[in-house]
Amino acid sequence: MVGGGEGAFIGAVHRHAASLDDQLELVCGAFSSDAQRGRRSGVALHLDPQRCYADYDEMFRAEQALDASERMEFVSIVTPNSLHFPIACAALEHDFHVLSDKPATISLSQAQDLYGELEATGLLYGLTHPYTSYPMVIEARQRIAKGAIGKVRKVLVEYTQGWLADAVEHKGNEQARWRLDPAIAGPSGCMADIGVHAFHLAETVSGQRVTDICATLNRTVPGRKLDDDGSAFLQFDSGAHGVLTASQICVGEENSLVLRIYGDAGSIAWNQQEPNSLWLKPAEQPAQQLRAAAAYLGATATNNTRVPAGHPEGYIEAFANLYRNFAEHVRGFRPTPGSIGLTTTVPGIRDAMRGMAFIETVVASSQAGSQWQRIPDID
Amino acid sequence: MVGGGEGAFIGAVHRHAASLDDQLELVCGAFSSDAQRGRRSGVALHLDPQRCYADYDEMFRAEQALDASERMEFVSIVTPNSLHFPIACAALEHDFHVLSDKPATISLSQAQDLYGELEATGLLYGLTHPYTSYPMVIEARQRIAKGAIGKVRKVLVEYTQGWLADAVEHKGNEQARWRLDPAIAGPSGCMADIGVHAFHLAETVSGQRVTDICATLNRTVPGRKLDDDGSAFLQFDSGAHGVLTASQICVGEENSLVLRIYGDAGSIAWNQQEPNSLWLKPAEQPAQQLRAAAAYLGATATNNTRVPAGHPEGYIEAFANLYRNFAEHVRGFRPTPGSIGLTTTVPGIRDAMRGMAFIETVVASSQAGSQWQRIPDID
Amino acid sequence: MVGGGEGAFIGAVHRHAASLDDQLELVCGAFSSDAQRGRRSGVALHLDPQRCYADYDEMFRAEQALDASERMEFVSIVTPNSLHFPIACAALEHDFHVLSDKPATISLSQAQDLYGELEATGLLYGLTHPYTSYPMVIEARQRIAKGAIGKVRKVLVEYTQGWLADAVEHKGNEQARWRLDPAIAGPSGCMADIGVHAFHLAETVSGQRVTDICATLNRTVPGRKLDDDGSAFLQFDSGAHGVLTASQICVGEENSLVLRIYGDAGSIAWNQQEPNSLWLKPAEQPAQQLRAAAAYLGATATNNTRVPAGHPEGYIEAFANLYRNFAEHVRGFRPTPGSIGLTTTVPGIRDAMRGMAFIETVVASSQAGSQWQRIPDID
Amino acid sequence: MVGGGEGAFIGAVHRHAASLDDQLELVCGAFSSDAQRGRRSGVALHLDPQRCYADYDEMFRAEQALDASERMEFVSIVTPNSLHFPIACAALEHDFHVLSDKPATISLSQAQDLYGELEATGLLYGLTHPYTSYPMVIEARQRIAKGAIGKVRKVLVEYTQGWLADAVEHKGNEQARWRLDPAIAGPSGCMADIGVHAFHLAETVSGQRVTDICATLNRTVPGRKLDDDGSAFLQFDSGAHGVLTASQICVGEENSLVLRIYGDAGSIAWNQQEPNSLWLKPAEQPAQQLRAAAAYLGATATNNTRVPAGHPEGYIEAFANLYRNFAEHVRGFRPTPGSIGLTTTVPGIRDAMRGMAFIETVVASSQAGSQWQRIPDID
Repeated sequence: MVGGGEGAFIGAVHRHAASLDDQLELVCGAFSSDAQRGRRSGVALHLDPQRCYADYDEMFRAEQALDASERMEFVSIVTPNSLHFPIACAALEHDFHVLSDKPATISLSQAQDLYGELEATGLLYGLTHPYTSYPMVIEARQRIAKGAIGKVRKVLVEYTQGWLADAVEHKGNEQARWRLDPAIAGPSGCMADIGVHAFHLAETVSGQRVTDICATLNRTVPGRKLDDDGSAFLQFDSGAHGVLTASQICVGEENSLVLRIYGDAGSIAWNQQEPNSLWLKPAEQPAQQLRAAAAYLGATATNNTRVPAGHPEGYIEAFANLYRNFAEHVRGFRPTPGSIGLTTTVPGIRDAMRGMAFIETVVASSQAGSQWQRIPDID
Repeated sequence: MVGGGEGAFIGAVHRHAASLDDQLELVCGAFSSDAQRGRRSGVALHLDPQRCYADYDEMFRAEQALDASERMEFVSIVTPNSLHFPIACAALEHDFHVLSDKPATISLSQAQDLYGELEATGLLYGLTHPYTSYPMVIEARQRIAKGAIGKVRKVLVEYTQGWLADAVEHKGNEQARWRLDPAIAGPSGCMADIGVHAFHLAETVSGQRVTDICATLNRTVPGRKLDDDGSAFLQFDSGAHGVLTASQICVGEENSLVLRIYGDAGSIAWNQQEPNSLWLKPAEQPAQQLRAAAAYLGATATNNTRVPAGHPEGYIEAFANLYRNFAEHVRGFRPTPGSIGLTTTVPGIRDAMRGMAFIETVVASSQAGSQWQRIPDID
Repeated sequence: MVGGGEGAFIGAVHRHAASLDDQLELVCGAFSSDAQRGRRSGVALHLDPQRCYADYDEMFRAEQALDASERMEFVSIVTPNSLHFPIACAALEHDFHVLSDKPATISLSQAQDLYGELEATGLLYGLTHPYTSYPMVIEARQRIAKGAIGKVRKVLVEYTQGWLADAVEHKGNEQARWRLDPAIAGPSGCMADIGVHAFHLAETVSGQRVTDICATLNRTVPGRKLDDDGSAFLQFDSGAHGVLTASQICVGEENSLVLRIYGDAGSIAWNQQEPNSLWLKPAEQPAQQLRAAAAYLGATATNNTRVPAGHPEGYIEAFANLYRNFAEHVRGFRPTPGSIGLTTTVPGIRDAMRGMAFIETVVASSQAGSQWQRIPDID
Repeated sequence: MVGGGEGAFIGAVHRHAASLDDQLELVCGAFSSDAQRGRRSGVALHLDPQRCYADYDEMFRAEQALDASERMEFVSIVTPNSLHFPIACAALEHDFHVLSDKPATISLSQAQDLYGELEATGLLYGLTHPYTSYPMVIEARQRIAKGAIGKVRKVLVEYTQGWLADAVEHKGNEQARWRLDPAIAGPSGCMADIGVHAFHLAETVSGQRVTDICATLNRTVPGRKLDDDGSAFLQFDSGAHGVLTASQICVGEENSLVLRIYGDAGSIAWNQQEPNSLWLKPAEQPAQQLRAAAAYLGATATNNTRVPAGHPEGYIEAFANLYRNFAEHVRGFRPTPGSIGLTTTVPGIRDAMRGMAFIETVVASSQAGSQWQRIPDID
């Protein structure tokens, strides 16, 4: 693991997710840009002090030198955004698969370069958009693909939080500080932090691709250099329309990610804060509430559930699904020279490029006064 | 009453609303453009057949000739949109106050003319936006005005329905037919039918005025001449931002009008389909669920409630509040030459003009490729 | 109308309910045991002062003497419990149909006497249990009767309120005072006030009859002579079991009447505070949320709905259904000597006797230390 | 671990719970009464085959013989009920702390014997009632203890499931088979399986102790020897009353454990299927929705939460809290001859005895025709 030392939020989530199924063990780390602190973090996590490295370069070199039976199997990158790309490149260079936090990079061009590296090495790359690993989201995606709501016409997705309603970046909140610093976060604050999750969720579940965006981004709290709020109209390749709203200044909201997709024969709705239910509303019939772990769900949803219906699962379990599925890819990995190592059950490098294309297009549209802009097609 | 004969939806609602408190009696009507049918409707409503008129001109003339003790007190206009304006003008000409369904007219310029007529006659004009007459909406408005959520920053309002997801206008649905006919409905379908309610709710409760709009309207079902879906970014005079979404092609939605307003010290949320609750979320404190008829509500909300807490009230009761409040204006009316007869507890001519300005601006922005447009300031 | 003068709660509800459909008009009343006050109430309701009577005897005599075209059609009794019986008898004696608030009487034997009077006169009797007139309750009843949940096995019904959590009967709350006075309320407080509604709802919707009861009643607030809280185990004739809980000391509850019925092939759930939804949960399939005014509902539910789906209806509308349906009985009434005038779409004298049998059995079981007791079979 | 081999449900939950925080490692097990199968299960869990024992006796002997640095720290018992007691005794005999699934034993007298063993050895004993380890339940308990709802008056607790609605015990459902077999499950089916959780939750959160019970148990599905449904009136030492309902034949219910506690100054409500919210309803004020991980919660709730507000946690996390807290007891354990090793943050031997007293009293009361019975006081 790179990053995720003392005080970091997402590093701990990754560790819970990795250990939940007792199939993965954290064996080494470079937990902080401050080598002392990094070592201290590693020791607190019961790691072998020798494998608590001063920095990621040292870690990759040292681990590569170990016997295969002992060497780490893949690296998790849980640093601030601007480091995702260089660390991923370094990992690939030393022959390690990569599981990276989002956004993948701080520009689309970096993401495209990363694609090139993956093509060159054939190694695996996973991106932690955990929301698409919830069982009911998997179910929604499959049902829509099979026509449960007919032709998709309208996608409404919103992701609202309230934790940046105040200028906490000047009050010791380290998470807020770097997320609002363009040098570390990249060209966007809110859209790169949470908007990109909403975008990924909307495209993945609807099975549609956004082609054009008309956006407006706001810096609500005075003095900010990056957006803390914004919305985008979406045009999909299929002709469907959508609206994406992301905001971190919505006082009273916690982590409210809500997706609704309307087809010509029905609709679905899912709410991350009550993740074990999925609403399916077929036209002219009673709305149905599908529930996690129910016998009528598909095999993929079922395989991503651990306890019987009525025993709620949550964010850590979804994240653990992503880890477990990525680990299965890693363990089944056979190098195939010349072909990119695509993961199929976890978000990968294509999702990474789509996400960066989304972020850049949203920013560009807003800067142009909410002009409709074509999203770069990276295939 | 003009309009609202056999088969009409909103006419019946107006009649329930008017009779609920047993303070108003329907005394006459011109219920249909087909005189026969109109008379039949009136007789079915137990009216004196002599007061079931062939058309509104006849009605206004005949009623004006009656003794004041017998004469109708005001006219309710519940026809399709394009008739609202001529009927309202005719009513004023014959010295009758007007309570009109929305949208007030089919253009802003008509609404401005109507303002002129009202100024000339000094008579009263009410507009039936019933949603702002729900007690919990009244409470929300008052609390926000008193600072309960601090400075308003973000307004999210959406109004989604599914009844036009299919081409029902060609399958005998008369309501759908005229609402999608530009000659009758005016320049917009969905925005004029329900978007304008969302707009009125957002401005009224937030206490903010929209200055600029960037919109996109869609004709989802092929062959339609008017929008059946659309969204708008909103810029408010106070600096707040907003998003308004209205759609009639959202399969599975009934009449889902949801308002959320975020300030710098808290937020509120209200959902028309569960109208007896209002969420108030003060920053850093537990969310509060305020309930209709509770003792802690303000006097105005209380005065617009009829039964104790836990005995749900709904749409008809909200509509009845509007009727009762308008009737109080009528009964307390003292002609004041030269001044416009503004209602204070029901939406009036200023709301009518704002609504028409909204509709025209949304249409114009969308036609210009989602350009930001200034909403005409009609004061 | 008898009772329901100034300050009374339920009288106003009856009047709203009666006037909602503009088919009934309040023409006379004896609104209070205080003749002055009664007259004042009547005048405030715009009645002809001549028909604001000093007491119910005077009213029945005077009205009977009027011409049929002018005379009241039936009487609504909205007084405290102990007067229901004598007033109903007096009404029947003067040839008036009766619509009475619940509980019908203050003893089973009175209810049986009333049955005899009805048999003798052939007149109509309705009892205002409004909850069974909600459209989704009607739908639930019909679906269960048609086998939607298979054989009924378990009935859970609860009705909780919080308004008697404090000794408000000594603090000027007139409603509380008489409801807790055995001389006026009868042998039970909470069970006679709200438990009997829960009982009626459970029997009506399940289509099962309770045969045996094991109950415990509590007087939570010191000094009370009647129960303010209690529960009962229920044994049904079909072999099903149930639990009924009623309480008026549940701080934080408003008017929470919740019914759940479990069969061997599915279950239903309904909550009075969100009355426009009905949950139907077929075994092994997704739960369904049925919604008022949806096209898939049965004709009876539809006929008891006034507005389209998504426009919430509430308590007054349910009460108005009961009034409208009773009025239809009255208007279609043809005297049939020797046969009791049973209403079929509103609760009637049999429900009245069942309710009184329930109240007496609950009280007896509790007094005997929660002994199982057979409920008298009144047929 | 003893029990929890292939096909068992709760064993897997224990393992997820134990590994979530990466502080505990499963080192050995006797996973099945079938030695072959047990070994196979252990190997599938990546255990050292040498530590996959044929039975628990062998395991305790072998592990005791290991060096302390290698030896297991405590044993988890996840077998069917009748084995809990002998295994716990054997563990204590070999000097191992015990974490046992519920119910602790199959009789109160066994539980009392176990108490004696614990007193004799001074070792630690934990009982896995996981529901009281949810952060919002912890918060509810603390707030009630501090007077947030005043004096407790009424406790309503229900736990309904539907998985035994059908005779699945004859259709290959092993879980159902043993839970309905008196030789394995003990004197009760439903009450011993889930009723005892509801009882523990009610006593723990209310801070009150039940003194008397009046119960009725049912065997709904023909041919069953143990209850699959039942209810009990509860009398608490403080004078409060309660109703407990537990059922496993409620088609459509999953794992619906709902607790409501009413005091004279407020009430609380918690629903296991939406565990991250706690309702607090202070008298005369708006209801408050308290949310997991919010800053306003107490330190104990916060310490039992892993992710920020809005990132839902569930059943595994609650169970993991219990494991982590028990492990802390184990690691901080200092033998104190002559004193029983009570755990303070996880349910322990006193809860075990209370639970068995509850089960025996419920059964006895029901068998005596719903007679009120005093619950044995085991202190």
